[in-house]
Amino acid sequence: MNKQDIEQWFQSLQDSICKTIEEVDGKAKFEEDSWVRPEGGGGRSRIIRNGNILEKAGVNYSAVHGPTPDNILKALKLDKADFYATGVSIVMHPVSPMVPIIHMNTRYFEMSNGVYWFGGGIDLTPHYINDEDARYFHQQLKSVCDRHDMGYYPRFKTWADDYFYIKHRHETRGIGGIFFDRLTENENTTKEQLFDFVKDVGSIFAPTYAYLLNKNKNLPYSEKEQNWQAVRRSRYVEFNLVYDKGTKFGLDTDGRTESILMSMPPMAKWEYNYQPDLGSLEELTLQKLVKGIDWVGTSTSFEV
Amino acid sequence: MNKQDIEQWFQSLQDSICKTIEEVDGKAKFEEDSWVRPEGGGGRSRIIRNGNILEKAGVNYSAVHGPTPDNILKALKLDKADFYATGVSIVMHPVSPMVPIIHMNTRYFEMSNGVYWFGGGIDLTPHYINDEDARYFHQQLKSVCDRHDMGYYPRFKTWADDYFYIKHRHETRGIGGIFFDRLTENENTTKEQLFDFVKDVGSIFAPTYAYLLNKNKNLPYSEKEQNWQAVRRSRYVEFNLVYDKGTKFGLDTDGRTESILMSMPPMAKWEYNYQPDLGSLEELTLQKLVKGIDWVGTSTSFEV
Repeated sequence: MNKQDIEQWFQSLQDSICKTIEEVDGKAKFEEDSWVRPEGGGGRSRIIRNGNILEKAGVNYSAVHGPTPDNILKALKLDKADFYATGVSIVMHPVSPMVPIIHMNTRYFEMSNGVYWFGGGIDLTPHYINDEDARYFHQQLKSVCDRHDMGYYPRFKTWADDYFYIKHRHETRGIGGIFFDRLTENENTTKEQLFDFVKDVGSIFAPTYAYLLNKNKNLPYSEKEQNWQAVRRSRYVEFNLVYDKGTKFGLDTDGRTESILMSMPPMAKWEYNYQPDLGSLEELTLQKLVKGIDWVGTSTSFEV
Repeated sequence: MNKQDIEQWFQSLQDSICKTIEEVDGKAKFEEDSWVRPEGGGGRSRIIRNGNILEKAGVNYSAVHGPTPDNILKALKLDKADFYATGVSIVMHPVSPMVPIIHMNTRYFEMSNGVYWFGGGIDLTPHYINDEDARYFHQQLKSVCDRHDMGYYPRFKTWADDYFYIKHRHETRGIGGIFFDRLTENENTTKEQLFDFVKDVGSIFAPTYAYLLNKNKNLPYSEKEQNWQAVRRSRYVEFNLVYDKGTKFGLDTDGRTESILMSMPPMAKWEYNYQPDLGSLEELTLQKLVKGIDWVGTSTSFEV
């Protein structure tokens, strides 16, 4: 397996996810923008606007290369090296506040000195947390992880809790999922096995989200729920612009701004000192935006 | 003059600005939230919501102290010192897209080892750039600067162009203004003179913005202009969350999130790959969101 194989697999992942999402949405068609990076490589961004279920969604593929950015060289204590990076990034913002926002990323990074790693993750951001859906979502991720390594789910679930955390709000972005980075071969795992794991993570995305879209798309809502959705979307903006490493890396390395910021919601509201009513569904959701909830019942250490 | 004098002056500045803004708006009244910082000090945040002219506006005063944050110690190559910081921060988002957003900050910072400095600035972000208003605004700032030092305006105007720059958009946030930091006494200037300058900057805020509010508040607009306002507001969010040092400092040091993020607009929109129509007023505004425009005609090096 070489990087061309990985690249091709990511391209086919983008194709198949777009196909499924178009079918489920029933109206939206992805528009494609291909772009070239002056320093090397490029990508194809695919965007949906104003679908039946999805208001704004992006499925981006890219494969870029060139001199390694200084901050990465510094982190790896290297003087100079070329890098190659390929991956698929997804964010989907639904029309309805009753349907969750989702994010997925799978990526492969390689340097001219032979160092390489895989990274990725999937996390769900419901505007209203529904325990049944949260369990279902986490169970899908756990099943994929368990097929490869029984240690993956607990480790990558905790990593997601820590990563998707809005420090200044003291709240998680959503119900988390899995997050992993810098996975490289070791005595127990070959590069092929790691790639197989990343492929399985990528492949579980479409069926899992399709299920959640269909299950929730017809739930009724009013202006009250739409207003809460706009507030939650502002927290999504805050996470992505203040903390997200992929966004920072993209903006720092002069990536294509419109592809990087396709993750922004179509609209967001900032109301000064917003406080949900006591006992409301909004308040219940806030109470569950915390780290360490054991959604699939692998331990009894946390009671929701 | 000691820090209590500075503190008191900033408090009276907050009072007088709030009074003028309430009078000009004619409807909105500031709500006040006083807060205490566990590590030392506190502040009073004053917020307007849904006024006649101002949709969301904040005028914050604070005076905080305690152990100096590590990043500042590092920048100053110091091991350990206590700090004291006081200032007034303002952001105002008008209802109408024809009325500009404004920001002002004046601040004083002091450390237990005797190091101190003043900083501050005022910048204007019109949704539609009007050359006449831009000239008027810059002329007010230039007049204040020139009373203290003929070198201030050119230096602080360039500093504002560089500071209020959205790198990933290749555009300035608005038409700039003045920005200055780490002003401390030297052979030509005493601490009292610096404080006098900062006081004059603070004092010019209310009359200058009041003039622009009154001049533009009755201009007609439609959904088209409101949509453009929502797009420009998203760029304001991007600047504040990605680049603004005050926001970063506040979030990093566990400041009061709602006071720091009062700068966020009430609502913002992100439309994928938004492009204004050729020759439209929106496009004309984009063309003027560049560094180096000589609004007051001190040189002829730039033709708008």
